[in-house]
Amino acid sequence: MIASPSDNPGVRRLIADVTRGRDLGDGEVRERLAHATWSTLCEPGDGAAGAAISAFGAEDALRRLVDGTLTEVPGIAARTLRDAMARWTPRLAPDAVESALRIASAAGVGLVIPGDEHWPAALGDLGAHGPICLWVRGDTSALSRLEPSVALVGARAATSYGEHVTSELAAELAGSGIPIISGAAYGIDGVAHRAALAVGGQTVALLAGGADRPYPAGHAQLIERISTHGVVVSEVPCGAAPTRWRFLQRNRIIAALSTATVVVEAGWRSGSLNTAGHAAQLGRALGAVPGPITSAASAGTHRLLREYAATCVTSADDVRDMLGIATGGSTYVADGRPDTDQSSRVRDALSARVWRDAADLARRSGLSVGEVEGVLGLLRLDGVAESGSSGWRLLTPGSAPALF
Amino acid sequence: MIASPSDNPGVRRLIADVTRGRDLGDGEVRERLAHATWSTLCEPGDGAAGAAISAFGAEDALRRLVDGTLTEVPGIAARTLRDAMARWTPRLAPDAVESALRIASAAGVGLVIPGDEHWPAALGDLGAHGPICLWVRGDTSALSRLEPSVALVGARAATSYGEHVTSELAAELAGSGIPIISGAAYGIDGVAHRAALAVGGQTVALLAGGADRPYPAGHAQLIERISTHGVVVSEVPCGAAPTRWRFLQRNRIIAALSTATVVVEAGWRSGSLNTAGHAAQLGRALGAVPGPITSAASAGTHRLLREYAATCVTSADDVRDMLGIATGGSTYVADGRPDTDQSSRVRDALSARVWRDAADLARRSGLSVGEVEGVLGLLRLDGVAESGSSGWRLLTPGSAPALF
Repeated sequence: MIASPSDNPGVRRLIADVTRGRDLGDGEVRERLAHATWSTLCEPGDGAAGAAISAFGAEDALRRLVDGTLTEVPGIAARTLRDAMARWTPRLAPDAVESALRIASAAGVGLVIPGDEHWPAALGDLGAHGPICLWVRGDTSALSRLEPSVALVGARAATSYGEHVTSELAAELAGSGIPIISGAAYGIDGVAHRAALAVGGQTVALLAGGADRPYPAGHAQLIERISTHGVVVSEVPCGAAPTRWRFLQRNRIIAALSTATVVVEAGWRSGSLNTAGHAAQLGRALGAVPGPITSAASAGTHRLLREYAATCVTSADDVRDMLGIATGGSTYVADGRPDTDQSSRVRDALSARVWRDAADLARRSGLSVGEVEGVLGLLRLDGVAESGSSGWRLLTPGSAPALF
Repeated sequence: MIASPSDNPGVRRLIADVTRGRDLGDGEVRERLAHATWSTLCEPGDGAAGAAISAFGAEDALRRLVDGTLTEVPGIAARTLRDAMARWTPRLAPDAVESALRIASAAGVGLVIPGDEHWPAALGDLGAHGPICLWVRGDTSALSRLEPSVALVGARAATSYGEHVTSELAAELAGSGIPIISGAAYGIDGVAHRAALAVGGQTVALLAGGADRPYPAGHAQLIERISTHGVVVSEVPCGAAPTRWRFLQRNRIIAALSTATVVVEAGWRSGSLNTAGHAAQLGRALGAVPGPITSAASAGTHRLLREYAATCVTSADDVRDMLGIATGGSTYVADGRPDTDQSSRVRDALSARVWRDAADLARRSGLSVGEVEGVLGLLRLDGVAESGSSGWRLLTPGSAPALF
């Protein structure tokens, strides 16, 4: 049913094409063809297919499926396997994979399979539900340089606030060498890609349909630019349409590829919450940008803060913290509380107008004379107080701190 | 040095005044006078005074201090006690407490001490650092009805966003019977009190200076209204000025009295973070309202979300959740993710225009025919799909869900 590549020089040439001219042995060609074929047989995230490929290798698993001898897969219940085969078999068409390869070859889309030099190791965390292969348009090698990387995702119906914040975060992170991963959708996704491109940074777009099919159509030009300066990726074969299921599964790849996922704006039921859920499930760092609670476009990010314990992201430094990259620039205060020590009391007791001696200050501050004298010494060092023959006074009344 | 109340009918009458006419025995009068005196001797939060009173009772501890026999207090190091006595002794003036009582009596300020019917049990969590007594203007009994209650606090330099949110939260919570506790400051505090008063709810203002001294002066009228319809409270004696130290200590009482503390807006170093710190330390529920990350007035609340694991508060229902009050009204979705089951795939495969049979839908969805038929039955029940002689189609194309 499936053409053997050694029988079909056309298919062999297509496989060579999508492998970017690398010189391939017969075994490699067959292995690649088998992965490509599996990606036409099953929908993304098919754990039974993943288990079969993991048990027998893509080529042998495929042969068994065609022969009708795929009767047992370790870890998969017989009933589940029967159901899975009932899903795969209707798609065993001789020309399906050839068609996908032909489109890929024509559109300059490459094929990457597990074990390839640039296969992203992070996808291993998806286990049997990981992609069988990736269809890639652009710089394939970028896929092996995604640690660290950040997914910036969010609502298609973004507000100007969300777009502004996305643009700032993406530009600063991409500008400092951190790849920005997103889904090329309208709204937050598109702004994230654009800002990364604008600063000459790396960006990766994950599509729910084939890598040859720009979606949404209004982002065709943007996706073209991403494929030139970054990389466009899909796990479904070329020619495949984006479907709701594929969008949801595409999200798991965004989450898995990224060291951290940050949702900038999201409605209460936004699809980006799905990406966030995958990130949390995979143990990836999850961040959410807060916004006005009066904005429906922030309802989803607030939900992530409240229900998923997402990190509250207010700056690129916050994201770097999530990635474990030392920021240094921030001046965090140890405990976030105003100074509550005795010096507050003594400062309260000091006047800028009149001189007061230590005994007077002790009475006014409720401290002992000894404590007051100790504090006064420090206040003098800090340039806050000065001493004279009649006692002490505040040195710079204009700069005296407000109560808070 | 300290007048004995039995020797001084004026003081006895003043104590009776600030106890609101309750008939007092000699012992009760002396006990009350001793607490009032201690509150003139030490600054708020003085743990040595708290320990001495706890060990000997206020009256005996005071007698020992005056006699010079307060040489040992369980749990207090000798050095610490010496320092403390050096702080208290300069304030042992015969007329200090009488003056405080006279002002209180004239201003209608009552005195509440631990053990009194309306003493708030929650203050026990402050241990030896708790207030020695409370000076109260308004409905003292409200102090024993603060479980549950909510502190709504925040920046003096609030934005219109912060004021809007505070007003909505305070009105809805106070309107449903939950007292609002705050600090009567400009900005968030003032709006919280006003909104609670506007809906006829209960509100409690904690002042850093004497309960007779409205602070800030611009809120004199508001504080007067709070004392009429709610209650104004301070731990420092009447006549005492608000100082930086007293503000910081006042915050610990706001946190201790409230079941939950919610910071609505706060700058990076806002004093309301100090209240939040106390709430966290006391194990009280701590919430923060997010805002635009471009707003400096929300920098502090975002800090609470990030560094203090504060609960993200976006509605009065979120606050009720923090108080453990069932809300019921909300329609939370179990896991916050869009439906990811097989029905998504089948819906994707269905068309609103053409009829498709189960085999066709199985091929398009990548599911088995059996799985598709199961899903179709459910979709028909949900009114999403209909069946006809040529197969199935989407029932209401107009209402088909967007991809996200």
